[in-house]
Amino acid sequence: MKKIAVITSGGDAPGMNACIRAIVNTAWQEGIDIVGYRHGFRGIVEGLSQPIHPDDMRLVSQRGGTFLKSARYPEFQRDDIAIQAAEQLDADGVDALIVIGGDGSFRGAHHLSKFWSKQVIGIPGTIDNDLTGTDVAIGFSTAVDNAVEAIDKIRETAEAMARVFIIEVMGRRAGFLGLHAAIAAAAEAMILPEIDPQPSLGDLADNIRQARKKFPDGSYIVILSENLWPGGVHGLAENLSQATQITCHPCPLGHLQRGGRPNAQDRILATQLGQSAISAILSGSSDMMIGFANEHVVEVPITRTFTRDKPLDQSLVDLQFSLQGVNFTSENGR
Amino acid sequence: MKKIAVITSGGDAPGMNACIRAIVNTAWQEGIDIVGYRHGFRGIVEGLSQPIHPDDMRLVSQRGGTFLKSARYPEFQRDDIAIQAAEQLDADGVDALIVIGGDGSFRGAHHLSKFWSKQVIGIPGTIDNDLTGTDVAIGFSTAVDNAVEAIDKIRETAEAMARVFIIEVMGRRAGFLGLHAAIAAAAEAMILPEIDPQPSLGDLADNIRQARKKFPDGSYIVILSENLWPGGVHGLAENLSQATQITCHPCPLGHLQRGGRPNAQDRILATQLGQSAISAILSGSSDMMIGFANEHVVEVPITRTFTRDKPLDQSLVDLQFSLQGVNFTSENGR
Amino acid sequence: MKKIAVITSGGDAPGMNACIRAIVNTAWQEGIDIVGYRHGFRGIVEGLSQPIHPDDMRLVSQRGGTFLKSARYPEFQRDDIAIQAAEQLDADGVDALIVIGGDGSFRGAHHLSKFWSKQVIGIPGTIDNDLTGTDVAIGFSTAVDNAVEAIDKIRETAEAMARVFIIEVMGRRAGFLGLHAAIAAAAEAMILPEIDPQPSLGDLADNIRQARKKFPDGSYIVILSENLWPGGVHGLAENLSQATQITCHPCPLGHLQRGGRPNAQDRILATQLGQSAISAILSGSSDMMIGFANEHVVEVPITRTFTRDKPLDQSLVDLQFSLQGVNFTSENGR
Amino acid sequence: MKKIAVITSGGDAPGMNACIRAIVNTAWQEGIDIVGYRHGFRGIVEGLSQPIHPDDMRLVSQRGGTFLKSARYPEFQRDDIAIQAAEQLDADGVDALIVIGGDGSFRGAHHLSKFWSKQVIGIPGTIDNDLTGTDVAIGFSTAVDNAVEAIDKIRETAEAMARVFIIEVMGRRAGFLGLHAAIAAAAEAMILPEIDPQPSLGDLADNIRQARKKFPDGSYIVILSENLWPGGVHGLAENLSQATQITCHPCPLGHLQRGGRPNAQDRILATQLGQSAISAILSGSSDMMIGFANEHVVEVPITRTFTRDKPLDQSLVDLQFSLQGVNFTSENGR
Repeated sequence: MKKIAVITSGGDAPGMNACIRAIVNTAWQEGIDIVGYRHGFRGIVEGLSQPIHPDDMRLVSQRGGTFLKSARYPEFQRDDIAIQAAEQLDADGVDALIVIGGDGSFRGAHHLSKFWSKQVIGIPGTIDNDLTGTDVAIGFSTAVDNAVEAIDKIRETAEAMARVFIIEVMGRRAGFLGLHAAIAAAAEAMILPEIDPQPSLGDLADNIRQARKKFPDGSYIVILSENLWPGGVHGLAENLSQATQITCHPCPLGHLQRGGRPNAQDRILATQLGQSAISAILSGSSDMMIGFANEHVVEVPITRTFTRDKPLDQSLVDLQFSLQGVNFTSENGR
Repeated sequence: MKKIAVITSGGDAPGMNACIRAIVNTAWQEGIDIVGYRHGFRGIVEGLSQPIHPDDMRLVSQRGGTFLKSARYPEFQRDDIAIQAAEQLDADGVDALIVIGGDGSFRGAHHLSKFWSKQVIGIPGTIDNDLTGTDVAIGFSTAVDNAVEAIDKIRETAEAMARVFIIEVMGRRAGFLGLHAAIAAAAEAMILPEIDPQPSLGDLADNIRQARKKFPDGSYIVILSENLWPGGVHGLAENLSQATQITCHPCPLGHLQRGGRPNAQDRILATQLGQSAISAILSGSSDMMIGFANEHVVEVPITRTFTRDKPLDQSLVDLQFSLQGVNFTSENGR
Repeated sequence: MKKIAVITSGGDAPGMNACIRAIVNTAWQEGIDIVGYRHGFRGIVEGLSQPIHPDDMRLVSQRGGTFLKSARYPEFQRDDIAIQAAEQLDADGVDALIVIGGDGSFRGAHHLSKFWSKQVIGIPGTIDNDLTGTDVAIGFSTAVDNAVEAIDKIRETAEAMARVFIIEVMGRRAGFLGLHAAIAAAAEAMILPEIDPQPSLGDLADNIRQARKKFPDGSYIVILSENLWPGGVHGLAENLSQATQITCHPCPLGHLQRGGRPNAQDRILATQLGQSAISAILSGSSDMMIGFANEHVVEVPITRTFTRDKPLDQSLVDLQFSLQGVNFTSENGR
Repeated sequence: MKKIAVITSGGDAPGMNACIRAIVNTAWQEGIDIVGYRHGFRGIVEGLSQPIHPDDMRLVSQRGGTFLKSARYPEFQRDDIAIQAAEQLDADGVDALIVIGGDGSFRGAHHLSKFWSKQVIGIPGTIDNDLTGTDVAIGFSTAVDNAVEAIDKIRETAEAMARVFIIEVMGRRAGFLGLHAAIAAAAEAMILPEIDPQPSLGDLADNIRQARKKFPDGSYIVILSENLWPGGVHGLAENLSQATQITCHPCPLGHLQRGGRPNAQDRILATQLGQSAISAILSGSSDMMIGFANEHVVEVPITRTFTRDKPLDQSLVDLQFSLQGVNFTSENGR
């Protein structure tokens, strides 16, 4: 084992830089060189490599984003493109590849492994946290903090003006970010892709009216996962405004959720997973994700990470539904 | 002078609470009682008053929003409503009224003074900072910081993914927030209501293409004031994406700009203005705004604050236009 | 079960307010009243009770500290004082008591249970995180974030001035906070109470000299747990300055580690534990702590939480020792 | 004018990077090259120069510290050292020098000008804000925000535990940081170098006792400038604890005040001053500081900046003394 390559792929996630640092510093002690390709899989195909030395890693852990740059690259599903990547890796003398990214990136990693005989290891880095086999992915915790910090600010103006806000959080097809944000922000309602059936417009409107009746001066916050309601957050706000005759303000949080200094938890997770990825390679693993489950580092077949749906923690879902709006929706049980 | 009333009116602004604290603590030393009406002018009309004592003010300065609640209340333009307010103030024994708010609130204050013979004083509190006669308004500095903190986060993901973002900031009809955010965030372009003529779509598209050519890996950020482009930030992003064939991502910052802990500068300004408002009342002023110009507290006729347009600081506009994108748009002068 | 009492005790921890909210809202649905005693055990003895209703809980989750106030109260070790507390609880008709706090508070809870026949439940709330039987305590995650945010700032000035900083973090007898902060901040060295043997002054000085030789322009940060070195952080800084002839700056982080908005993780944990405490009481548990281990809520005999030493996660200790200063202390393994 | 050199000197201040960006981008348009010397004056003497191009400046504005590194360098007072610097500047073909720093750095700049015939311009960058002729210096506003953010956190734990904290802020011989922090944090007392006479121990103790009597549950915060009380913050805390028999906790804020992302205000100020420094050089100025007074850029003889004492704004001092502790020290005036 002389040279390991690393890429960051798909949507960037805070903590990716700390992960690369752990990879580089660990490999260096083992006498292994690390090379990074910029812009994920596309960078492999285009040969955009750069050697990375521990000296370069002194001050990267606290930075958001990824200094290696990332990219979405759907073309990598094609066999000819993956073969090109395999040839480039061979030409560069790479003995193993570490892919830090989400489910699309892991499909790419697995696809590559059909055409490249060397070891491929995935490290979960996605604010969506939707990879099966790991409790958490790098960037998720920071994204939740980013969202909640923004919602806390919105809560202050909402409270001052007695307003209803519909706040759209990221998550594409997964409600992890929405669920954690809703609990932490003590939201009055949440709408996540995994909830079945979704609350009806009528129920939501009733709830808002009840809240307004009980707390005419108060704020009301709905957390909505993106891509969920017809017309998104603007559609829902309009529907609810009509149904309740109370102005409901749409507020998409947008890309600030993705950026920013990684919090301590993400840096620590990233450091653990980075070091463990080198260990896994040295012990011969391939086509595996290095994840974190029940407070321990685990290895999971990479095909399992994206082929099975990862459910929300039902106890957290129940927790939020049980506590949200308890003071205007239910009677004291006694 | 036995009793002074205070309201916060219009959009809430961080620092309003620190201002109320200064009013209450200053008045108390003079033996004057302070009463607050909740929800701005509407609260006067509806008689929603509460006495405020210094003991209640111990921990409010660091809070965003306004504990007195605010509201927009266009009905107050009507004479009969203003007369009702005047009667309520008299019935409550109020000797003077302090209105913390923006231009709409000051119009309301002036309107009231036609029907109420007692003193009315305005304190500028608006994140738009569009009041003539004061360099700054309470909340403006914090709103700029809130916007720039969000843009810094977006910059990190933009840089990681080599993306173009069109970021919409608040400001309604004034570009102060946009201008300050653009300079502080080192934005590549800005579009503000006061700029005449606006940059054309073609010019903007050219600029983005030049930047992409010079920095294919780099981010590009446009600051756009709200209500400015047809279709807003989504319209501009779509137009630019088409014109450049580079995906331009829309990102409205939304209400988080308005919320959050006031920064130190806003708390200090709010404290100064609050104390000075009491002094102004004691010295007999009325129908005046207590503002801040050239680093000193000033008194300005309230009618002047909203009847004249407040220009942007042209030297700041020139500064941003001169520095933005200098490295891809202009040749080294030598 | 008609009435449950709750106290926050010992050093305050961010997230305690979110925990009380969960307790109150959960109990309310079961028809149980919640009463809070201010200032921990002292408040019970002095009868400082106040009923708490879900309506009071709308906006407390995002606040640091504890609105119920906390206190250290060593007198509670005395039998007569505990008996007084038991009598007060009986006089107030309390059916069960929830104690949110750390090891001293849990000793108090257990002590009380000798003289009071009703149920007593503990919820771990301590930034030291030194309670056996729970992976995390409320407040720990936020305290780590607070520390790391401060260290990130110090890193910037340290880097600008090429300085060595000795940074003292809280933890009394436990190195959890120091360990997590060291990893997240990519510290060059750490000194924790659990490390045996401690690094010698000579080794630390050698390390600093090596770092300075390799990176004459660079910063160097030592994380030191409080109460550990003779003379504390000032003593160590002086010793190292003498030994290395390089000025080493002492920097105790102090109480800002304890304060501040709880992060999302602490609010979620606090909400889970608060709800589970009510469930535990309803299912008849007593003299137990409701903790969190391997990502699940657990019940642990309260006597076990403070009678056994809780070890640091050795894999994290090894991780930090392996990565810290790798670029100036070890040769490339090849 | 072909080549201008820039250094950052003395204690680093957040915003210095944004200032360098403005210098570089402005100069580039004029066809002037910018060269930076690392580590301030020492770097000139040692010839540690590096050319700086606008392309390097894309992402520096939001960073704290100074990428050019800074240093304290008392040796520069010697004539032979200054002559060496002058020779090095000539050897490097430098036509003008910009020094970003505080009073010590400006003394150095003036000292250099005795031995070097080219233009020297100072830009105020110091969190102490103690330079005569400019209302604000780069870094001051951010340092106040850093301090107040930390004090807000300490306020929360102080309030939860009903504690007295003595908080030491930076400032060496100037109370600007302490004064602004005290007002913004609504401190109960402040001790600054400029106040004459200082409050006596007896008065401070009386005040704390009054506060405790009025608010037995409440917090009490004293802001103390560094280097002021015998034994510093620990000495004062001990003296007050003895005098009041109430534990007073010392809390030095330390170097986190200096670090961190510059706030928007400092970035804007830094950008204005950087551009204006180039203009000043092109118009022939030398031995001048480019400052900011009454909301306008001004030029001030550099010798005036450090030879006259800059007073605190007395209206702000009066404001704080008038409002602090009004609710436990004075009677309602009526």
